[in-house]
Amino acid sequence: MALIVQKFGGTSVADLDCIRNVATRVKKEVDQGNQVVVVLSAMAGVTNQLVGWANEVSDFSDHNQYAEYDTVVCTGEQVTVGLLALCLQNMGISARSWLSWQLPIKTDSFHSKARIESIDTTNIRSSLDKGEVVVIPGFQGITEEGRLATLGRGGSDTSAVAMAAVLEADRCDIYTDVDGVYTSDPRIVTKARKLNKVSYEEVLEMASLGAKVLHTRSVEMAMKCGVKVQVRSSFSDAQGTMLVEEEEVMERRLITGIAYSRNDAEITLSKVENIPGVAAHIFGPLAEREINVDMIVQSIGDDGNTTDITFTVPKEEVHNAVEAIENSQIKYDKILSDKDVAKISVIGVGMRSHAGLAQKMFQTLADKGINIRVISTSEIKISVLVSEEYLELALRALHTAYDLDDKEAE
Amino acid sequence: MALIVQKFGGTSVADLDCIRNVATRVKKEVDQGNQVVVVLSAMAGVTNQLVGWANEVSDFSDHNQYAEYDTVVCTGEQVTVGLLALCLQNMGISARSWLSWQLPIKTDSFHSKARIESIDTTNIRSSLDKGEVVVIPGFQGITEEGRLATLGRGGSDTSAVAMAAVLEADRCDIYTDVDGVYTSDPRIVTKARKLNKVSYEEVLEMASLGAKVLHTRSVEMAMKCGVKVQVRSSFSDAQGTMLVEEEEVMERRLITGIAYSRNDAEITLSKVENIPGVAAHIFGPLAEREINVDMIVQSIGDDGNTTDITFTVPKEEVHNAVEAIENSQIKYDKILSDKDVAKISVIGVGMRSHAGLAQKMFQTLADKGINIRVISTSEIKISVLVSEEYLELALRALHTAYDLDDKEAE
Repeated sequence: MALIVQKFGGTSVADLDCIRNVATRVKKEVDQGNQVVVVLSAMAGVTNQLVGWANEVSDFSDHNQYAEYDTVVCTGEQVTVGLLALCLQNMGISARSWLSWQLPIKTDSFHSKARIESIDTTNIRSSLDKGEVVVIPGFQGITEEGRLATLGRGGSDTSAVAMAAVLEADRCDIYTDVDGVYTSDPRIVTKARKLNKVSYEEVLEMASLGAKVLHTRSVEMAMKCGVKVQVRSSFSDAQGTMLVEEEEVMERRLITGIAYSRNDAEITLSKVENIPGVAAHIFGPLAEREINVDMIVQSIGDDGNTTDITFTVPKEEVHNAVEAIENSQIKYDKILSDKDVAKISVIGVGMRSHAGLAQKMFQTLADKGINIRVISTSEIKISVLVSEEYLELALRALHTAYDLDDKEAE
Repeated sequence: MALIVQKFGGTSVADLDCIRNVATRVKKEVDQGNQVVVVLSAMAGVTNQLVGWANEVSDFSDHNQYAEYDTVVCTGEQVTVGLLALCLQNMGISARSWLSWQLPIKTDSFHSKARIESIDTTNIRSSLDKGEVVVIPGFQGITEEGRLATLGRGGSDTSAVAMAAVLEADRCDIYTDVDGVYTSDPRIVTKARKLNKVSYEEVLEMASLGAKVLHTRSVEMAMKCGVKVQVRSSFSDAQGTMLVEEEEVMERRLITGIAYSRNDAEITLSKVENIPGVAAHIFGPLAEREINVDMIVQSIGDDGNTTDITFTVPKEEVHNAVEAIENSQIKYDKILSDKDVAKISVIGVGMRSHAGLAQKMFQTLADKGINIRVISTSEIKISVLVSEEYLELALRALHTAYDLDDKEAE
């Protein structure tokens, strides 16, 4: 008898038919003699509606107001857990919902972006021991003060992984609307292949780079706690993708996947006075406004006395960032911003031990006449910023160049 | 400084504009230096949708399943309390929502039709003492087992009155989409007058007879606990109707109002064998099926050996009732059922001390050529069953006959 945590996202519980489908997925595990804990999202679109309402009636000038925001937003999952429990009971399966305050799942007090601090498993264990399927709302918990708190968007993945960790579950299956993690976005790269296994580190880079497979925090937690996570589709029986330790990735590949993001904008300051600490002068004001700067490149100007600095910030922060710099003491000639850029990242743990992988990226893009605007690297990824119009061309060229194409799709 | 409980129904919180309007109503009391506890319903239509979903996925063959039903249905009010608290905070008014489990409000374990057993006022008092407006979801509480339970439809009125009772509030204002209790339904009787005061007993008869002013249980509780209830509109500043003790109704009127109901159906058994205990034989099988029989009339047949029995049951129970009788041992000639009937009731505490009020009803209807099919009376009301097609005619004629017409509207 195994203990399985199953997590179903918003599209998997979008309506009553979907919820019934989830119930049959749960039943399969029950029929195999497994104990099952189900973690659910709200119906697709519901959380957005609730958040929209809250934003319409409040400007959240005081962070304490997010306690009420959370009270509102928590209801989405409460609906789906009750409905799934009813579906299961109606199929003759013993089941019950446990709300976060009934367990409890305790979080810190940072409303709307809370973090799970502890999960009391007493009620879950006794419910499982009674032969019940335990159904739990994802994305939420209660604070020390006994108020509802949400974990921030995508938090249901984190709830599921945390639940699997404290219960020492044999597996945590994340059901979603795709059937696994792919070498690249199949909507753009038709020859993308599904990966049977991928390391936590790699999927973490992919998630943070915009591949919407799993919430970043959930992967971090899975990695830290060694939770066996499987990403699979709730709409097909296809094998999913297992998240494993780096050494367990048996396929001897150098590059695992190619991710991209359209979330960044490029800002360039030309002819900045080249004095010591110039970077601190620029990025200090941005840090004060909590603007997350990602890629940075600095080049010496023609005259040798000035420098050009280019960096990226989230698209929605461009105005804020430009304002911060204009209001600072920094001396420069011009400030330019461009939102029509895309970040492309080649990811693979193989990079740790192989040189020349970056060069292949630069050469491939050069061959296609694609200009690289900024470069940044980490131990297991190389990211470049290009004009957004080249995104699809670049993705497909790199996918082929790194030998990732699905041979059967050719 | 007074302590006011304000209750707003579903149409009063139907959308964000309505909720903002509620916030301004609350602000008025706050500006007058009053402490305010607000009890809210779900947005109009939301509870129906949630109930609909629950009914679609479950047949509720086991009553325990209603625990999950309640988990789902309770979310409607959780949304509105959070949104109102946000609105108030955004207007600069200190406010917070308290969910039923955070107080707690304790109920019995009869899910979907639970009754409030106790309300812990500790948190409410300390919240009020901090100068906060306390916002509470109506219609719900938690059971001894710590599960959410709903009070049944219209239960928010009961929540508000119970809250006013335990807090010994100075007033309980029930805000709705009508501006008070009328002598009759203004949509039919254009000359209906709003009552400034009405006794608990009278409004109780009106409520149970289909005048959808207040939930019956809430009136019973207000009467028992002496809660000063005012019914008023959330969309106008007009004075509402105060519920008071019988002796406080200063207007020397005999008849207070004329209510009606289209919820009943008539069943007639002809030529029933007239033996002792025949009524028990008929109504026993109905009671077994929990069918609520209301009006009953028995008349001796022409032959003297048989009797005709006519009674009313809720419309939706007609089929069930006929089946119960057909499957019983009762001997009769024919069974007839008619759904096209309406019950009209003349209500007034003045009846206790004045004779001849029933006769006026019968005469008025006779003058209009309206046949009375069944009659029943209580201490403060006379009800008759008539063909539904005469309903409006009868209501207007009786309203005039009992001198209830608004002189200004004439």
